[in-house]
Amino acid sequence: MKYNYLNNKSVDEAQREYFDYITENGFYYAKEIIPVNEAFGRTIANAAYAKISSPHYNASAMDGICVVANDTYGASEENPVCLTKEMYEIVDTGDAIPSKYDAVIMVEDLIKKDNDSFKIHSAVHPWQNIRQVGEDICEGDMIAPAYTTLTPALCGALLAGGITQIEVIKKPLIGIIPTGDEIIQPCSSPKAGEIIEFNSTVFSGMIMEKGGAVKVYNIVADKKELLKKALITALEECDMVLISAGSSAGRDDYTCEIISSVGTVLTHGIAIKPGKPAVLGASKNKPIIGLPGYPVSAIVVMNQFVLPLLDLYYHRTIDYQTYSKAVLGKKIVSSLKYAEYVRVTLGKIGDRLIATPLSRGAGIITSFTKADGILFIDQNCEGIEEGAEVKIRLLRNINEIEQSLIVTGSHDPLIDEINNIMKSNDVPVIIKSNHVGSMGAITSLKSRLSHMGAIHLLDTQSGKYNTSYIEKYFNNDVTLVKGVKRIQGIMVKKGNPLNIKTIEDLKKVRFVNRQRGSGTRILLDFLLDKNGISRGEINGYTNEKFTHTAVAALVKADNADAGLGIYSAAKMYDLDFIPICNEEYDFIIDNRFINDCKVKAFISVLKSETFKNRLDELGGYKIGE
Amino acid sequence: MKYNYLNNKSVDEAQREYFDYITENGFYYAKEIIPVNEAFGRTIANAAYAKISSPHYNASAMDGICVVANDTYGASEENPVCLTKEMYEIVDTGDAIPSKYDAVIMVEDLIKKDNDSFKIHSAVHPWQNIRQVGEDICEGDMIAPAYTTLTPALCGALLAGGITQIEVIKKPLIGIIPTGDEIIQPCSSPKAGEIIEFNSTVFSGMIMEKGGAVKVYNIVADKKELLKKALITALEECDMVLISAGSSAGRDDYTCEIISSVGTVLTHGIAIKPGKPAVLGASKNKPIIGLPGYPVSAIVVMNQFVLPLLDLYYHRTIDYQTYSKAVLGKKIVSSLKYAEYVRVTLGKIGDRLIATPLSRGAGIITSFTKADGILFIDQNCEGIEEGAEVKIRLLRNINEIEQSLIVTGSHDPLIDEINNIMKSNDVPVIIKSNHVGSMGAITSLKSRLSHMGAIHLLDTQSGKYNTSYIEKYFNNDVTLVKGVKRIQGIMVKKGNPLNIKTIEDLKKVRFVNRQRGSGTRILLDFLLDKNGISRGEINGYTNEKFTHTAVAALVKADNADAGLGIYSAAKMYDLDFIPICNEEYDFIIDNRFINDCKVKAFISVLKSETFKNRLDELGGYKIGE
Repeated sequence: MKYNYLNNKSVDEAQREYFDYITENGFYYAKEIIPVNEAFGRTIANAAYAKISSPHYNASAMDGICVVANDTYGASEENPVCLTKEMYEIVDTGDAIPSKYDAVIMVEDLIKKDNDSFKIHSAVHPWQNIRQVGEDICEGDMIAPAYTTLTPALCGALLAGGITQIEVIKKPLIGIIPTGDEIIQPCSSPKAGEIIEFNSTVFSGMIMEKGGAVKVYNIVADKKELLKKALITALEECDMVLISAGSSAGRDDYTCEIISSVGTVLTHGIAIKPGKPAVLGASKNKPIIGLPGYPVSAIVVMNQFVLPLLDLYYHRTIDYQTYSKAVLGKKIVSSLKYAEYVRVTLGKIGDRLIATPLSRGAGIITSFTKADGILFIDQNCEGIEEGAEVKIRLLRNINEIEQSLIVTGSHDPLIDEINNIMKSNDVPVIIKSNHVGSMGAITSLKSRLSHMGAIHLLDTQSGKYNTSYIEKYFNNDVTLVKGVKRIQGIMVKKGNPLNIKTIEDLKKVRFVNRQRGSGTRILLDFLLDKNGISRGEINGYTNEKFTHTAVAALVKADNADAGLGIYSAAKMYDLDFIPICNEEYDFIIDNRFINDCKVKAFISVLKSETFKNRLDELGGYKIGE
Repeated sequence: MKYNYLNNKSVDEAQREYFDYITENGFYYAKEIIPVNEAFGRTIANAAYAKISSPHYNASAMDGICVVANDTYGASEENPVCLTKEMYEIVDTGDAIPSKYDAVIMVEDLIKKDNDSFKIHSAVHPWQNIRQVGEDICEGDMIAPAYTTLTPALCGALLAGGITQIEVIKKPLIGIIPTGDEIIQPCSSPKAGEIIEFNSTVFSGMIMEKGGAVKVYNIVADKKELLKKALITALEECDMVLISAGSSAGRDDYTCEIISSVGTVLTHGIAIKPGKPAVLGASKNKPIIGLPGYPVSAIVVMNQFVLPLLDLYYHRTIDYQTYSKAVLGKKIVSSLKYAEYVRVTLGKIGDRLIATPLSRGAGIITSFTKADGILFIDQNCEGIEEGAEVKIRLLRNINEIEQSLIVTGSHDPLIDEINNIMKSNDVPVIIKSNHVGSMGAITSLKSRLSHMGAIHLLDTQSGKYNTSYIEKYFNNDVTLVKGVKRIQGIMVKKGNPLNIKTIEDLKKVRFVNRQRGSGTRILLDFLLDKNGISRGEINGYTNEKFTHTAVAALVKADNADAGLGIYSAAKMYDLDFIPICNEEYDFIIDNRFINDCKVKAFISVLKSETFKNRLDELGGYKIGE
């Protein structure tokens, strides 16, 4: 086994050095001539000058008659002027005005006198109601400068200016080579050890968004000669090549070596997290980038190095990215070893935009699907305190962010179901739920970081749920809204092979736990205490998961024999279920938002028949009061 | 000749009534199943639930060895633990962990002891460095609710969750029927009276931007039976039909009648400007909209009625439009007869965003190509004062708007040329020029509405240019930057058929003038006074144009025999030119912006060799000091 340490070049240095190299080596665009009516969204290569004026002739701006303005002078209510047939011609909007005439009278202003003549009550001045030549565009006028991206209206203006064909920048073709012995095409039933190749789909979308074309090659195994052959083919066919995975320094990581063998490697290893094991190289004027295998790492490298190359190619000089200030909802610690790109969700809580960090794992693609923005943490920064003002690069439209209802606390799939019912009913609200457990909900509401919380907290003294906690932690500044009753129990493998029946039985098996502060964890601790079992007697007590489905998935996968959770999760995974108790899963709402339309929409779904029916399908629920 | 008055229904009422009608009649989307790796940008029809967990097996998160955590307990610097070959297996990142192991030690932390065994200095805990099943996505988790538009990362997450095919909303097919006897396919040499059909290209782009597909039909002449046949065909093939032009009430306007004959017309005539003569109709559940022939009117109706139908179809409930506050740079008068959509340019002048209204003509497509935003004026509003705060719907990214350099004043094509040179040199600055004449530049700078102005103002007493005006109007708060010398003269038709040689000769011909306040107009007035000619003696003195090219175009088109203007315009139109004087076309810069990088970039181009060469090509210029 070998291990080669990577470089740790700063992002800035790596970017500057790489883009300079690429520019110096001539990363030029190709051009192509295409019809203007197919050119929407394309970028023109040169300034476009009108070939003809628009209008290109004197056109009537109205339906009416064209006249000589001089003939109409003096017309008034008292002294109408009469226009006889030799003094006018009938014209419709857009008709050419014969050269002897110089004005148009609208049909609404004409009073028929006899078959051939009209009376008018006011005069027209020369060129009135006529669109003179060049009113919109003059021949020779520059319609758009070089490197303009064509909007619908610009395509129209080019055609109006007599331009039917236009030279545009050819879309650059980016080749993507997925690599790895363990990589397989997407499917629904992969075997253990087989990794579904989805990164190329993510890259393709990102490239297309920026105006590039994509060619995804077949998956190549971790064999040097095959990799080299694939790279050489891609270099012949494409303007840029991305090699997915194999960019680190492990025993099967050949990306760097292969790029070196056909060109130059400028950087191997960048001080960013995630994204460190990236390779920046080139063959002549064609960039070759080795992307890390972990999807989140790869997306960060795409954003920092690949997409800027497309901007370079298209001569886009303005940063179209939007930013917003926000308040950090949770402390972040970061290392001095690298700059970090932290995905965050955003919510408008009162007048503050709150940024909540998402999972920082490089393998968590859902941290990008959930993210509303990116928080950049400089390499020289060791962390940011909760409550600090931060600058967020937005990944979503701010209007969408402001329509988000932030529901923090205990996990239950029903929150996602409510979100889906809202979407299906065209309610313009997006629910964002952070699974931080019931106690997390209380902390979050106290810190004013959420609109509402989801809790199921057993008061072990009274045996009642939730109310005593609210009394203890809040001063009448939240309202309790009853949610659902749901059954908690022990989830075990189908057929219950270890014959688990009681809490006592958990001592003899592998357990998977929920995180501290979750209502389910509090329930477990209560049950352990009640049965006189110490935490240390539970094998797996420290293996903490954040959701009921995560626990169920691990029991199903045989990482554990048992876990505590709700019936619907057990049902979803076809597990056996030993009921323990009926609990009350309720919502607490910050009183400031009790009349907020987003909160009202949420409660309205909670009361709906659709929701009740969906709960019945999921199983193990009863609607509360 | 007939004239039927149209309705004048308010926008709100027309929208509410029409969208309700369409919804009640079932404007449902169709669905189709497509591969996820081709689904980027599409909208899913139903909630997507993960079919498998991701990872779907316990995967090594690192290159290293997998071990039983228990075997490593107690390891420290002083007391290393030795792992012999039966205690581990070598794993790479992503490899499946055999069920007997429950942790991974990174290769960096291994010390080779002999061929088969390793020493370690610290213990690992259970599941350390292992991506447990469901770490990212758990089977059964909702990956996205219904009606979500798929981002690149979401496509990745779907594939990771074992979803390879997905049901998406089928793109609606919108049929566009261009109509009119005078309408022709785009070309570079239309005859008088022929109108280039470019509206369908504009509509197509707008529809594609919103996720629709388009079918443009052949142009149909203004014949009822042909129009009806075309509409019936389009209704069979498409989900919605747009009929371009013929929507008013003139003698050849059959759109309303034809829609009535195959379905229902809800509205004919809306109280909006531009856009009044629109027809809103339907055949069963298929919307049919008659769009005005004037492009700007049609775009307004597209924005208010057609694109919202696409939002309805796709169940998009959130307004993604962005708005900004701005200060109105010029008074607007509006009629109580209609709501108005005024196109504006925007510029950040100091800390104020200034909105300057563009041409309000319905035929001016360039008012949309130049527009940065739309100012909505309510029907009940008679106008807005200069300096008032207004709300602007943005048509461009705010970053682009903030990179705009606002150059107000005298027209010269060289301003466009400087803009193009900047774009070609990747300078992130966009020049926006308002052609309001030299005196307009002075007014604009005094009111702090521009960064800089372009002037050529002759002091008739001293014979000098510009300096005395600056002294008179400013208190050392602007700086004069010398621009170019250019030749002004009389533009006449090729060969000078009327033998025009002097200002005196203008008395006997048809003249086309420049607007009041322009330097060229001031020059003309000076020359007339000097020669003892009264304004009334000039036929066409009141026919005012805003640019040199507009004057040249009208002389070329024989709307006039002569006009005053610069040599480069005469050359562009192949006109004869009688030189009058050499004038100094200079720039005045608000001193607040003298060090602004946009202004500096402008001056740098002014001094460049590229610019000098381009001036030589245009002709009639000399570079100033």
